[in-house]
Amino acid sequence: MKADAMLRSYPGDVDLDHDLLTRALEALAACAQTCTACADACLGEDMVADLRRCITTDLNCADICTTTLAVLSRHTGYDAAVTRNQLQACVAACGVCAAECEQHAGMHEHCRVCAEACRACEEACRELLASIA
Amino acid sequence: MKADAMLRSYPGDVDLDHDLLTRALEALAACAQTCTACADACLGEDMVADLRRCITTDLNCADICTTTLAVLSRHTGYDAAVTRNQLQACVAACGVCAAECEQHAGMHEHCRVCAEACRACEEACRELLASIA
Amino acid sequence: MKADAMLRSYPGDVDLDHDLLTRALEALAACAQTCTACADACLGEDMVADLRRCITTDLNCADICTTTLAVLSRHTGYDAAVTRNQLQACVAACGVCAAECEQHAGMHEHCRVCAEACRACEEACRELLASIA
Amino acid sequence: MKADAMLRSYPGDVDLDHDLLTRALEALAACAQTCTACADACLGEDMVADLRRCITTDLNCADICTTTLAVLSRHTGYDAAVTRNQLQACVAACGVCAAECEQHAGMHEHCRVCAEACRACEEACRELLASIA
Repeated sequence: MKADAMLRSYPGDVDLDHDLLTRALEALAACAQTCTACADACLGEDMVADLRRCITTDLNCADICTTTLAVLSRHTGYDAAVTRNQLQACVAACGVCAAECEQHAGMHEHCRVCAEACRACEEACRELLASIA
Repeated sequence: MKADAMLRSYPGDVDLDHDLLTRALEALAACAQTCTACADACLGEDMVADLRRCITTDLNCADICTTTLAVLSRHTGYDAAVTRNQLQACVAACGVCAAECEQHAGMHEHCRVCAEACRACEEACRELLASIA
Repeated sequence: MKADAMLRSYPGDVDLDHDLLTRALEALAACAQTCTACADACLGEDMVADLRRCITTDLNCADICTTTLAVLSRHTGYDAAVTRNQLQACVAACGVCAAECEQHAGMHEHCRVCAEACRACEEACRELLASIA
Repeated sequence: MKADAMLRSYPGDVDLDHDLLTRALEALAACAQTCTACADACLGEDMVADLRRCITTDLNCADICTTTLAVLSRHTGYDAAVTRNQLQACVAACGVCAAECEQHAGMHEHCRVCAEACRACEEACRELLASIA
């Protein structure tokens, strides 16, 4: 990720804390890919029928993180209300996905890793949200 | 769009009102494409420098509508909190984008059409949200 | 969809045939949503373990259609090579997804509807591609 | 990114070279975010009217990388034709975006960083493609 270098080269003021934003961007990219991979790994398990809810929360969390990452990467014409609401949706999705994956973490390593990525992303988004709310 | 036919063939109960959901799915697909096209049309205008904020709100609204459309298309392992929060973010993004496009609607037909699509999507999402909140 | 109205209000020349493009944009939006819904319906079936490949082809086709729709909605700074290659990827994804869903069409109505959406999108993208290749 | 850990925990065989795949996943995530940020930085420049084509190639490259990243994260029901065609589209988009950004690299640091991310992603995708073609 070159999020830090891109922020430094932005031709204007960025309305968000540089360090909190960089951490959130990196956590969002990691969480989106991990959730996509976890949905796929759950789909490949023998017990896929017991992992339906995990697959859906993974897919939703991946989509929501990808969109939140894009919104947080735009500073020209920044709108605090759009950013705040999308961050709030992301905190909710990461929290729900983490809680679901944690239930399967003892049995599936991909769920353990994914729960970790979701918790890290939830926290990074929550801290960024707190700094602008 | 085949949203209605797909909902009827879903092998389980859908936790959302069928008509409100169908209307929201169609409004979201229309709004996402219209906002992507409006950002591109603004970028092609001579006065692009005056349309920066419109381009960003269009791009954010397109991404948020696309993700909300995907989340609302998933009923297996449905989670009301994820749906509610993402709908709330979508209502905010559509409202901000509509208000921005309305300021240019007299000068640019693409902004007039886009503002309409955003208001329709904002209302469809708001009604669906009210039905589950 | 307001694809036709947005194309008419574009402030420049569009390098693609208006009718073929409009048809492709509508087919892509329909196919993306239908594939997302079909993946979710397959996940909800008792026989989900037999529908793994269908779920993955649906998810890939949905993502590829969504991106192709966005690329085809941008005319400012149009690049024929990017458009052609993404259209080719979309034709491939739609063809693979249609063939997979057709195998389950007799048993699952959502696969029958989805196969139809994929074939319509494959054809619309193929015709648009032929017009620019 | 936890791409390596997720690949190791996948409950089946992965049809792609582990190291080339991991490198591609990381390059795609970096390129998608960098292109989104470069489009936004170009939009914020005084000379935005001269950067129109750069903004569009950035937006297209970001969308195509995000979709390619998702496709490459799915191994259950893997289809070589879908993967190959999407990788080919990604190589094309990254090459076009790199060439465009390189023209502005002397004047805009964000374009210099973005060109680097695009070239790295182009190469990682090309090597992965060569290993499966």
